[in-house]
Amino acid sequence: MTKLKGACLIGQSGGPTSVINSSVLGCVEAALESEYITKVYGAAHGIKGVLNDELYDLTLEDPEELKLLKYTPSAALGSCRYKLTDPDSDDTDYKRFLEILKKYDIRYFFYIGGNDSMDTCNKISKFLSDNDYEYRVIGIPKTIDNDLAETDHCPGYGSAAKYVATTFMEVYRDATVYDRGSITVLEVMGRNAGWLTAASALAKYNGTGPDLIYLPEVPFDLDKFVADVEKVYKEKGYVIVAVSEGVRDNEGKYISSYFTDMAKKKDAFGHAQMGGLAAGLADYANQKLNAKIRGIELSLLQRCAAHLASKTDIEEAYMAGKAALEAAVEGQTAKMVAFKREEGTEYICKTVMVDLSDVANVEKTVPREWINEEGNDVLQPFIDYALPLVQGETELKYENGLPRFARLKKIKAKA
Amino acid sequence: MTKLKGACLIGQSGGPTSVINSSVLGCVEAALESEYITKVYGAAHGIKGVLNDELYDLTLEDPEELKLLKYTPSAALGSCRYKLTDPDSDDTDYKRFLEILKKYDIRYFFYIGGNDSMDTCNKISKFLSDNDYEYRVIGIPKTIDNDLAETDHCPGYGSAAKYVATTFMEVYRDATVYDRGSITVLEVMGRNAGWLTAASALAKYNGTGPDLIYLPEVPFDLDKFVADVEKVYKEKGYVIVAVSEGVRDNEGKYISSYFTDMAKKKDAFGHAQMGGLAAGLADYANQKLNAKIRGIELSLLQRCAAHLASKTDIEEAYMAGKAALEAAVEGQTAKMVAFKREEGTEYICKTVMVDLSDVANVEKTVPREWINEEGNDVLQPFIDYALPLVQGETELKYENGLPRFARLKKIKAKA
Repeated sequence: MTKLKGACLIGQSGGPTSVINSSVLGCVEAALESEYITKVYGAAHGIKGVLNDELYDLTLEDPEELKLLKYTPSAALGSCRYKLTDPDSDDTDYKRFLEILKKYDIRYFFYIGGNDSMDTCNKISKFLSDNDYEYRVIGIPKTIDNDLAETDHCPGYGSAAKYVATTFMEVYRDATVYDRGSITVLEVMGRNAGWLTAASALAKYNGTGPDLIYLPEVPFDLDKFVADVEKVYKEKGYVIVAVSEGVRDNEGKYISSYFTDMAKKKDAFGHAQMGGLAAGLADYANQKLNAKIRGIELSLLQRCAAHLASKTDIEEAYMAGKAALEAAVEGQTAKMVAFKREEGTEYICKTVMVDLSDVANVEKTVPREWINEEGNDVLQPFIDYALPLVQGETELKYENGLPRFARLKKIKAKA
Repeated sequence: MTKLKGACLIGQSGGPTSVINSSVLGCVEAALESEYITKVYGAAHGIKGVLNDELYDLTLEDPEELKLLKYTPSAALGSCRYKLTDPDSDDTDYKRFLEILKKYDIRYFFYIGGNDSMDTCNKISKFLSDNDYEYRVIGIPKTIDNDLAETDHCPGYGSAAKYVATTFMEVYRDATVYDRGSITVLEVMGRNAGWLTAASALAKYNGTGPDLIYLPEVPFDLDKFVADVEKVYKEKGYVIVAVSEGVRDNEGKYISSYFTDMAKKKDAFGHAQMGGLAAGLADYANQKLNAKIRGIELSLLQRCAAHLASKTDIEEAYMAGKAALEAAVEGQTAKMVAFKREEGTEYICKTVMVDLSDVANVEKTVPREWINEEGNDVLQPFIDYALPLVQGETELKYENGLPRFARLKKIKAKA
């Protein structure tokens, strides 16, 4: 395939992570070095920015400020959750997309995101192929959920995992400080895949972590849960629980919805329920025990705490962005950058290119054999898998005692 | 006063902070260097450990492990919330306390805590004076609430403030990433004093922080709150709110209780309320706006996140522990270590000794003139006050990519 000359466009999509911007930087810096890239554009709020003709000219940014993207959380260009229509029934969005590419002579499109974004990439790629426009489309993975197929792990996961494990270590020390019994339940993100909740086990590996861990991969039973808590409580006097937001019963009903229902009925326990899954579970487990209970939802903090990002994750996210640009210039398209872990005891991670169609709309969950039989803990293979991903600390700069994140000018691009 | 020779006992009390253990280390290291201190004991779970004759012999700990206390959150010796009886009506506890002091030849007692702990120190000190036992009792301040009188600020506050400000910077970037409107309310600790909630303003000072800040010092009005949110929303399309857990209406009723009441009545908004104050407020404010809403309770994380502790705070906490030991050896008693900020533009903090009786049971709140007239923001004098306290980063060591906190052996003391 001949090398194609033209502008490149980078977009970010889906929920934030601590390292999406590092992937942007990897892609932008490689683009600025390439003789085949004529211009570097960023899409405001992902695909929506393209459709609205809102592009930023990233070559006009201060290079020093761009470099700070490596340590800046969330999506500096803005994100979206826009789902393209099926091109067979309505191709308005695709036509518009092609129009914008032509307007700016964009030949390279990079989209950083999760499952849905890879599906978007895939659809765009197919449409462009059918419309005789020479182009390269490459997806760059991103998700704290770590649920993308065809890749060993996803950029964003290592940092979120480091945050979750560290937080469990710290909360453990707080929650066990009194001589009075306590039950503390922490709710971790993950609707269908328990990767991030499982990362709480790393805290245990390093000294002090959760006593019980529940992932969505195993059906959740309230009675079993109460029995588990009671057992630990009688042994230790306190219980720290990690629970995934997505735990469901064996009929597939979300456990969180139990507590919403209870709140509506309000009399189930004689008092109104407050605080969602974590507080609901702590309260429920405490029916027979007279403990101090607390439910904590880690909420947004787990996906934007760049101050605690993993250096490994930051560097790999950068590497993924750079690899995407290089692969595209080499002529690859309709691919996603994936990570391949080398065999052997030393952790070595390399990039490979996989087909977008193999990734789009597939969810990878935690293997059942990495979870103990009882379904309330994870096993050594998971630790071996996850531990290398949280290694190393961020080199985030501080100003006034607080993080100095990138401040982009975001200058609107001119065609 | 002649110098007194004997053992010293250190106890920790009340809610955890990131730097209480740094004060323990400051006190222990100074004690180990002093020729007047014969032994160094730690009380298991504060005053309760003394009454139960559960003391640790801290001289048996590995000095390298002790040094890690400087960066280890929560109370390594354990804490309690035990309130001593009034010695005039029931002196059982005090007699027992004196018995234990005599048993171990303890002449120096150091208690690290907040208001209640200073009251405990004060009562113990009076009882010992009346019972002809030569002793020194010194209180060491500790509280993320920063509400102790007679001191410029309290150890623990700077680190919690740094955590809160950093978290607001990060959540701001997360909550504003989409092009769709959003309302995000974060609930910060502080029942009566708004110092910690006010620290969210430091984030704004550094680029991106809350749009609205509500402290318990100003009566909270729900209608005014909704109007405030609506105004910001119409201007910017998103709103980030910092609210203290202790905000009350002008009759002194906690706003959080409104939402508990609503949940009980469940029909107030046609659906059950979940998630306490933050979620309740976000939901309430959104009645007229069709925004994405989110309520986040910072919960325990704000008081135990040692990985983000302020170096200034860590060093000052250490200095307070050391000053307590030195003052006691010099003959001072019934005092608390306090911080005095030197006049001038450069931040210099020194320790002074204040009377326990002036500190016990007094609460210091944020001056009204540091809050704007509308009661939804703080002013420059607060920034000038708080900014020096969050300077510098922790030197916490990492092991396996996660914090390496102190692991004490906690060997029971023998008399």
